[in-house]
Amino acid sequence: MRFQLSLEEIRTIAQPEQILGNFPGNITQIAALREAQAGALSFLANPKYSGDVAISKASLLLLPKKFDHIPAANQAIFFCENPSAALAKICRHIEKMGENTAPAAIHPSAIIPPGTVLGENVSIGAHVTFEENVKIGKNTSIGAGTFIGNGVSVGENVKIFPNVSVMAFSQIGHFVTLHAGVVIGSDGFGFVKIEDRHEKIPQIGNVILEDHVEIGANTTIDRARFASTIIGQGTKIDNLVQIGHNVKIGKNCIIISQVGIAGSTIIGDNATIGGQVGIAGHLHIADGTQICAQSGVTKDTEPNAVLLGSPAAPYKEAVRQFASIARLPEILKKFSKIISKNP
Amino acid sequence: MRFQLSLEEIRTIAQPEQILGNFPGNITQIAALREAQAGALSFLANPKYSGDVAISKASLLLLPKKFDHIPAANQAIFFCENPSAALAKICRHIEKMGENTAPAAIHPSAIIPPGTVLGENVSIGAHVTFEENVKIGKNTSIGAGTFIGNGVSVGENVKIFPNVSVMAFSQIGHFVTLHAGVVIGSDGFGFVKIEDRHEKIPQIGNVILEDHVEIGANTTIDRARFASTIIGQGTKIDNLVQIGHNVKIGKNCIIISQVGIAGSTIIGDNATIGGQVGIAGHLHIADGTQICAQSGVTKDTEPNAVLLGSPAAPYKEAVRQFASIARLPEILKKFSKIISKNP
Amino acid sequence: MRFQLSLEEIRTIAQPEQILGNFPGNITQIAALREAQAGALSFLANPKYSGDVAISKASLLLLPKKFDHIPAANQAIFFCENPSAALAKICRHIEKMGENTAPAAIHPSAIIPPGTVLGENVSIGAHVTFEENVKIGKNTSIGAGTFIGNGVSVGENVKIFPNVSVMAFSQIGHFVTLHAGVVIGSDGFGFVKIEDRHEKIPQIGNVILEDHVEIGANTTIDRARFASTIIGQGTKIDNLVQIGHNVKIGKNCIIISQVGIAGSTIIGDNATIGGQVGIAGHLHIADGTQICAQSGVTKDTEPNAVLLGSPAAPYKEAVRQFASIARLPEILKKFSKIISKNP
Repeated sequence: MRFQLSLEEIRTIAQPEQILGNFPGNITQIAALREAQAGALSFLANPKYSGDVAISKASLLLLPKKFDHIPAANQAIFFCENPSAALAKICRHIEKMGENTAPAAIHPSAIIPPGTVLGENVSIGAHVTFEENVKIGKNTSIGAGTFIGNGVSVGENVKIFPNVSVMAFSQIGHFVTLHAGVVIGSDGFGFVKIEDRHEKIPQIGNVILEDHVEIGANTTIDRARFASTIIGQGTKIDNLVQIGHNVKIGKNCIIISQVGIAGSTIIGDNATIGGQVGIAGHLHIADGTQICAQSGVTKDTEPNAVLLGSPAAPYKEAVRQFASIARLPEILKKFSKIISKNP
Repeated sequence: MRFQLSLEEIRTIAQPEQILGNFPGNITQIAALREAQAGALSFLANPKYSGDVAISKASLLLLPKKFDHIPAANQAIFFCENPSAALAKICRHIEKMGENTAPAAIHPSAIIPPGTVLGENVSIGAHVTFEENVKIGKNTSIGAGTFIGNGVSVGENVKIFPNVSVMAFSQIGHFVTLHAGVVIGSDGFGFVKIEDRHEKIPQIGNVILEDHVEIGANTTIDRARFASTIIGQGTKIDNLVQIGHNVKIGKNCIIISQVGIAGSTIIGDNATIGGQVGIAGHLHIADGTQICAQSGVTKDTEPNAVLLGSPAAPYKEAVRQFASIARLPEILKKFSKIISKNP
Repeated sequence: MRFQLSLEEIRTIAQPEQILGNFPGNITQIAALREAQAGALSFLANPKYSGDVAISKASLLLLPKKFDHIPAANQAIFFCENPSAALAKICRHIEKMGENTAPAAIHPSAIIPPGTVLGENVSIGAHVTFEENVKIGKNTSIGAGTFIGNGVSVGENVKIFPNVSVMAFSQIGHFVTLHAGVVIGSDGFGFVKIEDRHEKIPQIGNVILEDHVEIGANTTIDRARFASTIIGQGTKIDNLVQIGHNVKIGKNCIIISQVGIAGSTIIGDNATIGGQVGIAGHLHIADGTQICAQSGVTKDTEPNAVLLGSPAAPYKEAVRQFASIARLPEILKKFSKIISKNP
């Protein structure tokens, strides 16, 4: 995203406690300390990079207020209580500069049946399709080409990106974000075998996304068989994740890309699930469980368990197992010698 | 999905053999025996939950006809030959209550070139795009925003959900279901290296989906290089699955979410493939093969083989390997002692 | 794809050095030597199939110029300098026969704001949506239902299939192909924990796809936090792949389906990454690295390293580890006996 901000503009946003040095031009980039060049803003968020401050060519540095550094020529330093928080404010400002500033509007090509309930200040993009009995809360925006099914309710301040499909009867809370290509409320994968054929089990439940949930691009969340597949408040899900029917995920979980969670599994609050993890169906994953990338979980977990491997084991055990496997070829050679002596 | 059914309505649908007790209100939920509250229907499908019948607060119970239970106050029991089948009928009834009941129609925003062949009673949603020479069979419905490419034929009684892409020359049978975001007939991934560059190998085949196939949300199926990628009759595929070019899958297979099947592999009938499984290219997976979740298959399989692990081994062997690995760190400690005594 | 070509037409395309025999009909199929029937063209590309030439029922054979074979009745042989190259030309010709031959046009339902910069001979499908300040190079075609965000630039001779989402400020080079359902430039997955809630870190960077990049169906590529997620020239990415924010991939890499690459990882040129591989964040994967399917990479790699397993090890080591694990249950039995003698 291209931007141009003067030091004075950034000062107003970041509210530094002290300023040293000066840079007469505009800031047009943000970069890591080592990569920053003239015109770039950089920052010290992690003390491990303190050594990079002295060599940084950034024109503006955000530093912690007690950090000892004197600006180079044509370099300004903003000393901040919390450089990360200041940076976040600046980024949010830049992000807004890039956003569509047109007033909220409903594109004339959008199909909105009579009887749709729309809050104030709702934006609806081109080629959007609503079925019957849809409700959209105020300040919500819906991207081009998105489909919203029969009886869906969407809360306030929701951002739905383009080409999303929200199937019938889904309930979406406030401040939810759905990235492009997401599918919410597709049928659960349920079949019963009748004389060698797989007969479909009707999936008459729905999906509930609580407030502040974020769902990554092309992720799919299936509707429940009877009741609701539920994603708890504040939970953030990355791209290309699969959530099976009847799954219930607690609050403030982090689920990284390409995870698959099979049907009817219940996950507590504050769980962290690494990329490409698979979790079998009908399990209870306790609050605070952490599962490392590519693990396969086949059993219930204890609160705050840390798991690794497929099948997953407690982290320390799994690490010892991996280390043992790495030594195994050499060990087996020695073992063969002993066997030959102990027939 | 919200619904309201009287006991009399449910009786007509479920056709119970005997009725005991009564519940004067309406049924508005379906729930498991333990979770059911007043107003809920529950059921005993799996004998393992027999003990839950006595404590269930469901207002209506579907029980096997010889099951010994006396209704509580305000509780009705329908004794059925097959409670699961009765439940399926009730669910199908509820599902239909939630379906769009508008008569089949072609939305005026859909782009349907002259020369398209449409059967009777076809529904085409808003913002649908057809290329040339498309044929659609009777009673088929096509969701909003879906794209149907040049020369595609779609059978009768097919349900295509929104935002699906069916690329040129695909052939889709009768009673097929394509969930939202599916891509059928994207190019196979074929390149040949010419002087350090990857030149594309044209992919001029197509995809054939036989009758009664179901494809989950955001799943992708690539067209063949020359001939056809084929999904056999009655095979059900879950969300986010990748099927490579030239793959041929037999009849009545079950393929769970996030499976990847590489190019030119042939899978027989009645195979079951667990979530996140990877199958290498150019293999023959025999009829009835069962592959457990997260396995990696690199060799042909025997009929009815059961496989586990990456690389996959016969199930019992793999379980023994996993058990051995779990013991390995302790074993290696003991082994070190022996080594020290047997230098 | 159905086609019909006379031998004379194929001769003009394939430019064989010598012709033997004749087939009076038209060629309507391409098939492997063993599967070919009357009316089919077949070919010998890999010497390992030389034995199949004599039994092939193909009506037209493409053979290397020194291959010793006399045509059967009603069979023609084109002897070519390079049968694979000749085949590729024929396939490309057939592919073109199946392409939409309508002159480039902008569908009236497409939303193209004033100020959009369109090169010559641009095709834009139905129900496409452009935001502001979009530039599209000459000879580029954009499929139905695709969304192109604010400030996006797309190069020349690009092919974008239907239902793609290209988010704001993405830069797409020349001769790029984006298959159906691709999402380019979705937000990176970045959150910071503030008092038990996950606050979003704004993602103000973009995605750059260099020339000759191909991206498979439903693949997702996240925008960088500050700068650019970059896919280098000539790199080909398969379906359902996830590329995290700030990732930089070099030139001419091959990335197979369902790979996940976590944020800020840098991949050199000419890397080959097998299906379902996971690569952790902040790594350097050197030029020419080859990673086998389903591996999990957690460390930097050396140039031309070949890796296998999760956690990944050098290929030969991993193969020895797998072989050792397969023997482990038997070894542990023997070991128990020795233990009992050496308490």
